[in-house]
Amino acid sequence: MRAVAYEKPQDITSETSLVDVERPMPEAKGHDLLVEIKAISVNPVDTKVRKSREAAPGGLVQLGWDAAGVVKSVGSNVTLFKPGDEVFYAGVINRDGTNAEYHLVDERIVGAKPRSLNFTQAAALPLTSITAYEMLFERLQVKDPIPGDFRSILVIGGAGGVSSIAIQLARQLTDLTVIATSSRPVTAEWVKSLGAHHVVSHSQPLPEQFKALGITPGFVFSTTHTDQHVAGIAEIIAPQGRFGLIDDPSELNVKPFKGKSVSIHWESMFTRAVFGTSDMIEQHKLLNQVADLVDAGKIKTTAAESYGKINAANLRRAHRQIESHTTIGKIVLEGFQGG
Amino acid sequence: MRAVAYEKPQDITSETSLVDVERPMPEAKGHDLLVEIKAISVNPVDTKVRKSREAAPGGLVQLGWDAAGVVKSVGSNVTLFKPGDEVFYAGVINRDGTNAEYHLVDERIVGAKPRSLNFTQAAALPLTSITAYEMLFERLQVKDPIPGDFRSILVIGGAGGVSSIAIQLARQLTDLTVIATSSRPVTAEWVKSLGAHHVVSHSQPLPEQFKALGITPGFVFSTTHTDQHVAGIAEIIAPQGRFGLIDDPSELNVKPFKGKSVSIHWESMFTRAVFGTSDMIEQHKLLNQVADLVDAGKIKTTAAESYGKINAANLRRAHRQIESHTTIGKIVLEGFQGG
Repeated sequence: MRAVAYEKPQDITSETSLVDVERPMPEAKGHDLLVEIKAISVNPVDTKVRKSREAAPGGLVQLGWDAAGVVKSVGSNVTLFKPGDEVFYAGVINRDGTNAEYHLVDERIVGAKPRSLNFTQAAALPLTSITAYEMLFERLQVKDPIPGDFRSILVIGGAGGVSSIAIQLARQLTDLTVIATSSRPVTAEWVKSLGAHHVVSHSQPLPEQFKALGITPGFVFSTTHTDQHVAGIAEIIAPQGRFGLIDDPSELNVKPFKGKSVSIHWESMFTRAVFGTSDMIEQHKLLNQVADLVDAGKIKTTAAESYGKINAANLRRAHRQIESHTTIGKIVLEGFQGG
Repeated sequence: MRAVAYEKPQDITSETSLVDVERPMPEAKGHDLLVEIKAISVNPVDTKVRKSREAAPGGLVQLGWDAAGVVKSVGSNVTLFKPGDEVFYAGVINRDGTNAEYHLVDERIVGAKPRSLNFTQAAALPLTSITAYEMLFERLQVKDPIPGDFRSILVIGGAGGVSSIAIQLARQLTDLTVIATSSRPVTAEWVKSLGAHHVVSHSQPLPEQFKALGITPGFVFSTTHTDQHVAGIAEIIAPQGRFGLIDDPSELNVKPFKGKSVSIHWESMFTRAVFGTSDMIEQHKLLNQVADLVDAGKIKTTAAESYGKINAANLRRAHRQIESHTTIGKIVLEGFQGG
């Protein structure tokens, strides 16, 4: 089968940073599905792994953690899917990624593709949806209110991929007031279109803006530049509030949260599958729930621009764009040449 | 009335670091009780505030956040207590402390003194009990299990004041396996006597010791030297586990917790009263629950050594001992000279 992979971490400007390769067709065993990949999307995690992970001697690193496709065969323990089913999923960081014609994935982290979306639109959703859903409902437990009148959530970096889903899920599945940050008119319009009640600027200090709004957020979900915002978050968040983050600040001083007994919640959407936790099937369920919300017209996909067929040249172009930190919405790629 | 107070932060070796003073008798209004103080205990927070807080011009700083006494009069909104009631409580950091003959405290953070304890024994309990209870049941939510077979909690610094209550509460109110750390035979025996199932050494790396035990803790409660243990905690804690801390590490790098989606929980027992949260009456309820457990013989007080009457000389001696970091159990003082 065809795939895109590499041997050693290199700058994305190198032609061998991602290359077209032929690999053996994998075989589904146990809880695995063998999925024929129809479309993928590219996330910041792809570029982070590409810069740091080296292949084992004689091996390859195959990136990609977002896909939509069709089940071709199933392992002997599979009960949730059958060949022919259309699926979408993100996969797991410690196995081969989705940048290949065929791909193995544990059924318990796979959802039924939204019927109302084509494969390309669907491929943009899984990683961001899992991250946003798990942060809101598993980590921050936003349905368990903070004591007092603090029924609001601040989403920092509101126009990003995860935030774009988080804002919609918060509006559809909770009664929270949603405040999102942006820094440009185009992103302010975007987060409003997703349902944000209020938009504040992450280029300006948060405390003054929240004072003007008259809102004390019980929950804060920071998706980017958390180290720059942490002091302001500690100042505005409610006593006993909950603060979640997903980015990789080089330093994060959490001491300012002590006086308010605030908790700090990490979300990594790979935790359940990497550790094989007893509740990993929750990812199957939440993806199905997201698909239902999409089919009901309540959540819109954030697929933005197609970079064309799945090959090394187009993926290098996508990585370069992701590394520019100016991407709005998700970059997707669809099918293999002649596929 | 008599009180112990000071004007400017000074080293405890200075005779004016804490002095005997006469202050006006306070008057109970609103939700306040006026309590005649019968006994107090001394906590690390006293020494921290003494080193950092300066009195307003012409004013005094009155420390002390642990007391047992008798209600003398009540404010007009008080419903939970009446004059003559025996009470125990910690109070709040932004009002005068308990080092005085008479003291004002909001009824919603006061409990009925355990009937089976004298005032001196009771005074040792409130601050540590509130901290331990809130961490276990409000912050870590230990009754909400971590997905998987992770029904255990590690208590670091097991022989300390808060840990000594936390171990007992965990044993009495949950079915968790309790692992406590100590570093000396005498403290190992102490934490076992409180109910710890296993004792490990905080002078040795935690991962090897937990590997030997075959236990993956779902919960970790670190009461001291958290910065030294944080890497080991991240290594041993369960995926999706919850980690709580109460000390003041100069730096705390929480990034090692990301891969497991672990949450970090601060507990400050002053949060509810300082911010006047809508649930501050929970402290009244939990103190009553602790008193019932004490009277039922299920929790023992950790009062250790009486430093005699409440006066500046004895309190300076108590502060010196706390600052030595070698205290086992709680230091208590009882009554005023001639009182």
